[in-house]
Amino acid sequence: MMLSELAGRIGASLRGDGSREITGCATLESARPGELSFLSNPRYQGQLRTTRAAAVVVSADYAEDTPEGCATLVAEDPYYAFRQALIALHGFRVQPEVGISPESFIHHTAVVGELCTVRPFAYLAPRSRIGDRTILYPGVYVGKKAVIGNDCVLHPGVCVYDGCVLGDRVVLHANTVVGQDGFGYATAAVGGQEPRHHKIPQVGNAVIHDDVEMGSNCSVDRATVGSTVVGEGTKFSDHVVIGHGAKIGRHNLFVAHVGIAGSTTTGDYVVMGGQVGVAGHLNIGAGVRIAASAKVMTDIPRGESWGGTPAAPLTEAKRIVLNQKRLPDMAAKLKAMEKRLKSLENRSG
Amino acid sequence: MMLSELAGRIGASLRGDGSREITGCATLESARPGELSFLSNPRYQGQLRTTRAAAVVVSADYAEDTPEGCATLVAEDPYYAFRQALIALHGFRVQPEVGISPESFIHHTAVVGELCTVRPFAYLAPRSRIGDRTILYPGVYVGKKAVIGNDCVLHPGVCVYDGCVLGDRVVLHANTVVGQDGFGYATAAVGGQEPRHHKIPQVGNAVIHDDVEMGSNCSVDRATVGSTVVGEGTKFSDHVVIGHGAKIGRHNLFVAHVGIAGSTTTGDYVVMGGQVGVAGHLNIGAGVRIAASAKVMTDIPRGESWGGTPAAPLTEAKRIVLNQKRLPDMAAKLKAMEKRLKSLENRSG
Amino acid sequence: MMLSELAGRIGASLRGDGSREITGCATLESARPGELSFLSNPRYQGQLRTTRAAAVVVSADYAEDTPEGCATLVAEDPYYAFRQALIALHGFRVQPEVGISPESFIHHTAVVGELCTVRPFAYLAPRSRIGDRTILYPGVYVGKKAVIGNDCVLHPGVCVYDGCVLGDRVVLHANTVVGQDGFGYATAAVGGQEPRHHKIPQVGNAVIHDDVEMGSNCSVDRATVGSTVVGEGTKFSDHVVIGHGAKIGRHNLFVAHVGIAGSTTTGDYVVMGGQVGVAGHLNIGAGVRIAASAKVMTDIPRGESWGGTPAAPLTEAKRIVLNQKRLPDMAAKLKAMEKRLKSLENRSG
Repeated sequence: MMLSELAGRIGASLRGDGSREITGCATLESARPGELSFLSNPRYQGQLRTTRAAAVVVSADYAEDTPEGCATLVAEDPYYAFRQALIALHGFRVQPEVGISPESFIHHTAVVGELCTVRPFAYLAPRSRIGDRTILYPGVYVGKKAVIGNDCVLHPGVCVYDGCVLGDRVVLHANTVVGQDGFGYATAAVGGQEPRHHKIPQVGNAVIHDDVEMGSNCSVDRATVGSTVVGEGTKFSDHVVIGHGAKIGRHNLFVAHVGIAGSTTTGDYVVMGGQVGVAGHLNIGAGVRIAASAKVMTDIPRGESWGGTPAAPLTEAKRIVLNQKRLPDMAAKLKAMEKRLKSLENRSG
Repeated sequence: MMLSELAGRIGASLRGDGSREITGCATLESARPGELSFLSNPRYQGQLRTTRAAAVVVSADYAEDTPEGCATLVAEDPYYAFRQALIALHGFRVQPEVGISPESFIHHTAVVGELCTVRPFAYLAPRSRIGDRTILYPGVYVGKKAVIGNDCVLHPGVCVYDGCVLGDRVVLHANTVVGQDGFGYATAAVGGQEPRHHKIPQVGNAVIHDDVEMGSNCSVDRATVGSTVVGEGTKFSDHVVIGHGAKIGRHNLFVAHVGIAGSTTTGDYVVMGGQVGVAGHLNIGAGVRIAASAKVMTDIPRGESWGGTPAAPLTEAKRIVLNQKRLPDMAAKLKAMEKRLKSLENRSG
Repeated sequence: MMLSELAGRIGASLRGDGSREITGCATLESARPGELSFLSNPRYQGQLRTTRAAAVVVSADYAEDTPEGCATLVAEDPYYAFRQALIALHGFRVQPEVGISPESFIHHTAVVGELCTVRPFAYLAPRSRIGDRTILYPGVYVGKKAVIGNDCVLHPGVCVYDGCVLGDRVVLHANTVVGQDGFGYATAAVGGQEPRHHKIPQVGNAVIHDDVEMGSNCSVDRATVGSTVVGEGTKFSDHVVIGHGAKIGRHNLFVAHVGIAGSTTTGDYVVMGGQVGVAGHLNIGAGVRIAASAKVMTDIPRGESWGGTPAAPLTEAKRIVLNQKRLPDMAAKLKAMEKRLKSLENRSG
C-alpha cells in the first residue's frame, strides 16, 4: 500500500515521501526498509533515531526526531493509529471456512445459528445454543443449555459449562474455562464423624457480556446462586481467575495471573497489573488502577491508584518501599544517637 | 416446597409462617419473594434488614433481625443448613445420560466399569481402567495404565497421565492435569559442551485419594520416583499447582493460584488462601492456616496461622505491616530527636 | 541390573558388593532392599544413615556415611549420576505406537513427516507441518501454517496457534498453549463514544527453539509484530506465562506460576523461582537468578542474584527482611530514648 494512502486511512498527517510502498509493520528495532513502525512508549525513543523503517507513526512531539529518509506520520494517538495501520496492512486472523464439520458432535436439541463454523471434535450439549457466525475451534465444549451469542470465537479446548451465557463478539482463547463450580464447601462434622468439606451445589451460572476477550487458560467460576458476571468490553490476559459470585465491571483490563476472590465487585474501567490478587467480598470502585503484584485486602474508592502488599494508595505504598530501603540507615542512626545520649547522661549524671 | 417441610429437612427451627412456598435460593441482596437466603458472613448483616427473601437461615444471634414478613430458620451452622436447602431445592448438576459414545476412543485393553458415561472425544489409553458409574466428559484423556475409581467425574479436557491413580468420587474440573512430568533436570556440562539441563525421567506417578475435588486448570506433577499424593477429601480451587513428590494431607483447602513446590508435605486440615506459595522440601503441620498471598520459606508447626512475605506467624506478620505504616512517622521522630540531642550537646558542650 | 554394571554405566566408583541386583530407584526414605537411592540435597543427609537402599549415589564427601550393608557409588555429580541410573533402570516414558489414527483430523494440505504418531482427536490445520517422529497426543491442535520440528512430543490438549514455529525435540505438556493473541488494545474514545479497548491485531507469532520443555497449562503469547521467542534448551514448569514480544534466552529455568510481561528479554542461563513476576520492557542479564515470588520492576545486570518485592539484589533484599523483623524493637528503643532525652532536657532546662 502506498504510504500516502495509508496515511489517509489511519487519519495521520504525512511528512516525507508518500509514494513509497509499505509492505508491513514492525517494531522500531526490527523494521526493515519498506516497513512501518511507531513510537508510543517513550522508553523506545532512542530507537527512533536509528530505525530503518520506511515510516514511523509518532505524536507531534517526536515529529522532528525520525532519521533522514524515514517518513513521519503524525497522529494524535500514535498507538491507535498504528493499530489502524496493522488492520489495513495485515488484518485480523483469517478464520477457518464457514461450515459444520461432520466430525463435530452437535446434539439434536442444540441450536446452531446461521453461517457458523464448528470444527472437528467440537461438542454442543443438549439444548445448547450458538448465535450466527460464531466459530467453535476443535475441542471446544459447550455445555447443556449454555447460550452463546453472535460472532463469538471460541479457540481450541475452550469449555463453557452448562447454563452459562456469552454475549456477542466474545472471544475466548485456548483452554479457557467458563462456569466450573465455585469453591464452596461447608465444613462440618456430621454425625460424629471427623470434619469434612461438604460440597455446596453451585446452582448459579457465569454470564460474559458483549465484546469480552479472555486470553488462554483463564477460569471464571459459576456462582453458588445467581451469576458471576464479566461486564461488556472487559479484556483478560492469560490465566486470570474469577471467583464465584464476583461481578466484574465494564471495560476492565486484567493482566496475566490476576486472581479475584468470590463475591468481589469492580466498577467500570478498572485496570489490574499482572499477578494482582483481590480478596473476597470487596468493592473496587470505577476507574481504579492497581499496580502489578499488589494484594488487595480492603475496598478501594473510585478513581484511586493502589499498589503494594497489603495494597495501599500508591503514594503511601511507594513511601513504604522507600523507607524500607532507608531502614539500615535508620538503625545505624538510632544506635549512634543512643551512644551520644548515654554520653550526655554520664556528663549530667 | 413448603417452608415448614424445608425446615424439617435441613434441621432448622422455624419462626414465622411455615405454609409459604419456597421456590429457590438466593443471596440476601438479590432474593425475590418466595426465595430462601442465609446469613453466615457478618459482613452482610446489614442486608438482613432489607432482604426481600421469604425466609432466611441464620444462627440464634440473628434470629430477631429479619424484617417483618420474613420467616426465620434458626440453625446451629447456618452455612451448612443453607447447603442442605440448596440440595433440597436445586440438587447437584444433572450429569449426562449413562452410556459409551461411539465417538469416544476406548482401547480394547482398557477396562470400563458398570454404568459409566464416556462422552464423544474422550480417550482411554491401553490398559487404563475406570470404575463404576464414572463419568468422562468430552475431550478427557486417561493415560496408559491409569486407574480411576468409582463415581468419579472428569470434566471436559481433563488429562490424567499414564500410571496415575484416582480414588473414588474424585471430581476434576475442566482442563485440569494430573501426572505431567515434574520439573526435574540435572544441569551439567557433558563432554566439554556448554551446560545443559538434562531431563531426569519422572518414573513415579500421582495418586489422588477419595473425595478430592479440583477446580479448572489445576496441575499435579508426577513424582520423580514414588508418588505425588493428594489426600482424602482435599479440595482445590482453580489453577493450583502441586510440585513433584509433594504429599498433600487429608481435608486440605487450597484457594486459586496456590503453588506448592516439590517434596513439600502438608498435614491434615491445612488451609491456604489464594496465591500462597510454599517452597520445596518443607513440612507444613496439621491444621495450619496460611493467609492469602503469603510466601512460605520455612516449616510451620501444627495448628499455627501464618501470613506475609516471607511468611511469619500471623501476629508477627501483622505487626510488621503495622510498623511499615508507621515508618514515615518514626523517621520524622528520629530526625526531631537528633535536633534536640544536638541542642543539648551544644548546651552541655 | 548388577550393581557393578550399573556403576560402570553411570560413571561412578563402587564401594561395596557389586554383585547385588538393583531393581529400581527410590528416595532415601522410601527405598526398599534392592533399590538404588542418592543424596544430593544436604537437607536429607540424616536419611542417609537410616536408608534401607541397596546402594546410594553420593559425592566423595559422604562416601563414609552410608549404613552397613549399603553399597556406595561415588560420583562427582551425584544428581547427574542418579539421572543416568534412572535412565538405565527405568528409561523415559514409552510413547504410543507410531501411526496415524483414522480418528485424527489431518487437513489434506498438512504435511506429516516420517514415523509420526497422531492419536485420535488430534487436529492438523491447513498447511501445517510436523517433522519426523513427532508425536501428537489426543486433543492436540496444530494451527494453520504452524511448523513443528522433528522428535517433538505434544501432550494431550496442547494448542499451537496458526503460524507458530517449534524446533526439534520440543516437549509441551498437557493443555499448554503457544501463540494465543498477546494482550494488546488501544484504548480510545472513537467517534464521541465512551472509551473502549480496541483490539490490536496480533500479526506476529511465537517461536520455540530446540530442546525446550514446558509443563502443563503454560501460555506463550504471540507477538504483535515479529516473534515472541523461547530460546534453545529452556525449561518451564507448569503455568508459566510469557507476554507478547518477550525474548527468553537459552537454557533458562522458570519454576511454576512465573509471569513475564510483554517485550521483556532474558539472557542465557537465567533461573526464576516459583511465582516470580517480571514487568514489561525489561532486560534481565545472562546468568541472573531470581528468588521465588520476587517481583521485578527494573533491569537486572548479568550474573546477579535478586529477590524480594520490589526485587533488589539478594543481599539488600535479605537486609530489608531482617530489618523488618527488628522494627518493633526499633520502635520501642525510639520511645525509650525519647523519654531519656526529655529527662535530660528537664534537668538541663
